[in-house]
Amino acid sequence: MTRQELETIYEAEQDRHVSVWRELVRFPSVSADPARRDDCVACANWLVGRLTAIGFEARLIETSGLPVVHAERPGPPGAPVALYYGHYDVQPVDPADLWRTPPFEPVLKDGRLYGRGAQDNKGQMAYALAALDVLVRHDALTCGVRLVLEGEEESSGPGLKELLERCPELFQADFLLVTDTGMDPSGRPAITAGLRGVVQLEARLRCANKDLHSGIHGGVAPNAAHAAARLAASLHRADGRVAVKGFYDDALEPSPQERTEAGRALFDADAYRVLTGIGPTPGEKRYTLAERVGFRPSLDINGLAAGHAGPGFKTVIPCEAALKISARTVAGQDPDRVLDRLAGHLNEHLPPEASLEIVGRKSAGAALRVPLDAPALRAARAALDNLGAGPAVFRWEGASVPIVADLARVSGAVPVLVGFGMEEDNIHAPNESFPLARFRQGFLFVARLLGGGVASGGMEEGPVTGDQ
Amino acid sequence: MTRQELETIYEAEQDRHVSVWRELVRFPSVSADPARRDDCVACANWLVGRLTAIGFEARLIETSGLPVVHAERPGPPGAPVALYYGHYDVQPVDPADLWRTPPFEPVLKDGRLYGRGAQDNKGQMAYALAALDVLVRHDALTCGVRLVLEGEEESSGPGLKELLERCPELFQADFLLVTDTGMDPSGRPAITAGLRGVVQLEARLRCANKDLHSGIHGGVAPNAAHAAARLAASLHRADGRVAVKGFYDDALEPSPQERTEAGRALFDADAYRVLTGIGPTPGEKRYTLAERVGFRPSLDINGLAAGHAGPGFKTVIPCEAALKISARTVAGQDPDRVLDRLAGHLNEHLPPEASLEIVGRKSAGAALRVPLDAPALRAARAALDNLGAGPAVFRWEGASVPIVADLARVSGAVPVLVGFGMEEDNIHAPNESFPLARFRQGFLFVARLLGGGVASGGMEEGPVTGDQ
Repeated sequence: MTRQELETIYEAEQDRHVSVWRELVRFPSVSADPARRDDCVACANWLVGRLTAIGFEARLIETSGLPVVHAERPGPPGAPVALYYGHYDVQPVDPADLWRTPPFEPVLKDGRLYGRGAQDNKGQMAYALAALDVLVRHDALTCGVRLVLEGEEESSGPGLKELLERCPELFQADFLLVTDTGMDPSGRPAITAGLRGVVQLEARLRCANKDLHSGIHGGVAPNAAHAAARLAASLHRADGRVAVKGFYDDALEPSPQERTEAGRALFDADAYRVLTGIGPTPGEKRYTLAERVGFRPSLDINGLAAGHAGPGFKTVIPCEAALKISARTVAGQDPDRVLDRLAGHLNEHLPPEASLEIVGRKSAGAALRVPLDAPALRAARAALDNLGAGPAVFRWEGASVPIVADLARVSGAVPVLVGFGMEEDNIHAPNESFPLARFRQGFLFVARLLGGGVASGGMEEGPVTGDQ
Repeated sequence: MTRQELETIYEAEQDRHVSVWRELVRFPSVSADPARRDDCVACANWLVGRLTAIGFEARLIETSGLPVVHAERPGPPGAPVALYYGHYDVQPVDPADLWRTPPFEPVLKDGRLYGRGAQDNKGQMAYALAALDVLVRHDALTCGVRLVLEGEEESSGPGLKELLERCPELFQADFLLVTDTGMDPSGRPAITAGLRGVVQLEARLRCANKDLHSGIHGGVAPNAAHAAARLAASLHRADGRVAVKGFYDDALEPSPQERTEAGRALFDADAYRVLTGIGPTPGEKRYTLAERVGFRPSLDINGLAAGHAGPGFKTVIPCEAALKISARTVAGQDPDRVLDRLAGHLNEHLPPEASLEIVGRKSAGAALRVPLDAPALRAARAALDNLGAGPAVFRWEGASVPIVADLARVSGAVPVLVGFGMEEDNIHAPNESFPLARFRQGFLFVARLLGGGVASGGMEEGPVTGDQ
């Protein structure tokens, strides 16, 4: 269907799609709250009903946590298959007294729908449901579609992860569509083409067999806080670069095109200073700030503790110290190898007076980089460029979204991460909202992508715009 | 009085003195427990009665905390004045279920009296009261005596400190006798001839204006844990020596005699390893371990904290870090100057990405060093050498006892710190006890010192023994 046709249909049907959106927001599906379990299950059942009504074969799949909604509808013979991922659970409402309207009684005001989940992820899921509804009714779906909607995204529950490993056949697809991200701060549509992975290491240092009195032992006893400080300080150079041997090895270099695209995103040192109150570290000079976050691994101490740092003084020589560190990995890097290098550095730089125990070691999410010339990405870009919100930008996120990497691995699908959120939507905060204007953009994007874009490589209305 | 005379009297009167000791232990004078306030006051009143009965002019002095017992009795004209310090309060009894007999029902078993305070400080105070009782009754006191017995030693209350500043005239004396310390682990009597002082500094480092997500900001954002580690690591060299410029300046060097005496105390690296599970730091090579603790300043990090070091991982880049450090000062050093040098070092070595705020700065106790040729010390040594427990050793403690330094400063008195405690007495622990044999030694020491020793410079029975 053309953009014109879709716009005409949307104008006529907007109320119908917004009422589905409202219905979804009405469920207080707070997955972190055990008392809301029934509400979560009710929301999942309602989605099964809605997807069935649209024309999908839909069902609830039980897990050790909250159930997963699974639905599918075959496409034309030989057409690609899309896997759509969303989540029906929402964040808790605290602090409840800062809400101007009740969080589970959606209110439309000044062109925005207010309520918990109005954007994250019910609003961004509702425009996808609306697009599927329209495409099915007009027999315009150009690909097969599978949906997986989980109920434990906000509470990091195990349900979907288990299902992925248990029944990988439910997830096979050519591309993975996730509408749970945001636009560029400039208001231009954005495609997330990369995520970093994350590995975590927890170490404990020990000197004496007990805390010692700093008067009786001061000047003689080894101090675990001194040893931990020395060890922690050895992890970075003064300019912020990581000093661990081989830490940057195997990191996939950004291509010239990726570097060009990354340069379009809004990210400069001045804006950074306004946001955080401090300038960025000098760090690796060969990369821009956006490139350092998107394409380069990083290492941070997340926790460091020794002795008594609370109120009052304790005249103690601490006998042990805790050190928690994590590294963000990038495409090309093997998480286990990174963990080995970190552990090796700690052992090698351990001050001789201390012993070291690695008490935790975990690869908590793989890195992802989507080739810019993947057909699904080209199609998504074409659909976005066609929205009238300016040419789309690509983003390479520094954060990790473990479920996306897992879904991509198990399904074999190319991830297409596109969303229409903005900072002003206050997700995870009181008075969450999502404007009708962006709901409409989301509808048009999904409908364009699944109603022609992907199956034709995004080329049916002329070449991809943008100056690549 | 001669040792012979005193021994004869003690044999005849032991029951009488032990019953005073028992009476004292019966008071549950736990100063840290507000519910025991009345018991503390009752104990103080009982002491006023007892001292009056012995022949002192005694009274209770109210303070903002628990009352202080003050008593005095003039000596012969021209005689020196002794100021005796003790405390009538005791530690809490927790863990209560580990006591084999009720803590406030003193029990004599196998030559030891068991009960909370049986040693610290009621037992060591009771033998001093016994000595005063005997000397007064036999008109053998050769000096004036003032007593100050406080009730907030175990709870660090402000009462006595306030009184010292408010009424310094109550404390004027030639020497200060404190029987709240221990013997050498070898069983020989010990004189504490030095204490270190202590200064404390608390700093807060700050980078960004809020904690940042380590995925979104990793590789770009300054990390306060990194900055704190770097700063903390700058305080010491790898061998444990303090790296702060001028840190060892003004430290009074031990004299050859002090070094010889310090060498007699039991302190070696092997014993240290057994006690703490670790060998001492290499540290300053020009000094023995005992000398490093007794005569050299030290610097320790007592607390270091940044980010989340508790259970679980938090993917955070900490925006602030807390650093608590303390230094032990020695005679010759000005605490304020040491604090200035520490603060100067922190500012000078602060990584450029962090700001620093000194949020706490305190001189919490002055250092003390008593000249070995002070007449009171020579007299104490003579009295101790005469006990039959071997020649006395001198000790220079690494710890700080602020009230002793304050009393010495206000009174102008030379401190004589002699006690008969040993590790096996379990002070501050369940089943505290003190043996009759050392109670008797304490009695003989105090009686010899105040019944002749000090007034005659400790020389009445021949020259001071020991190979100085």
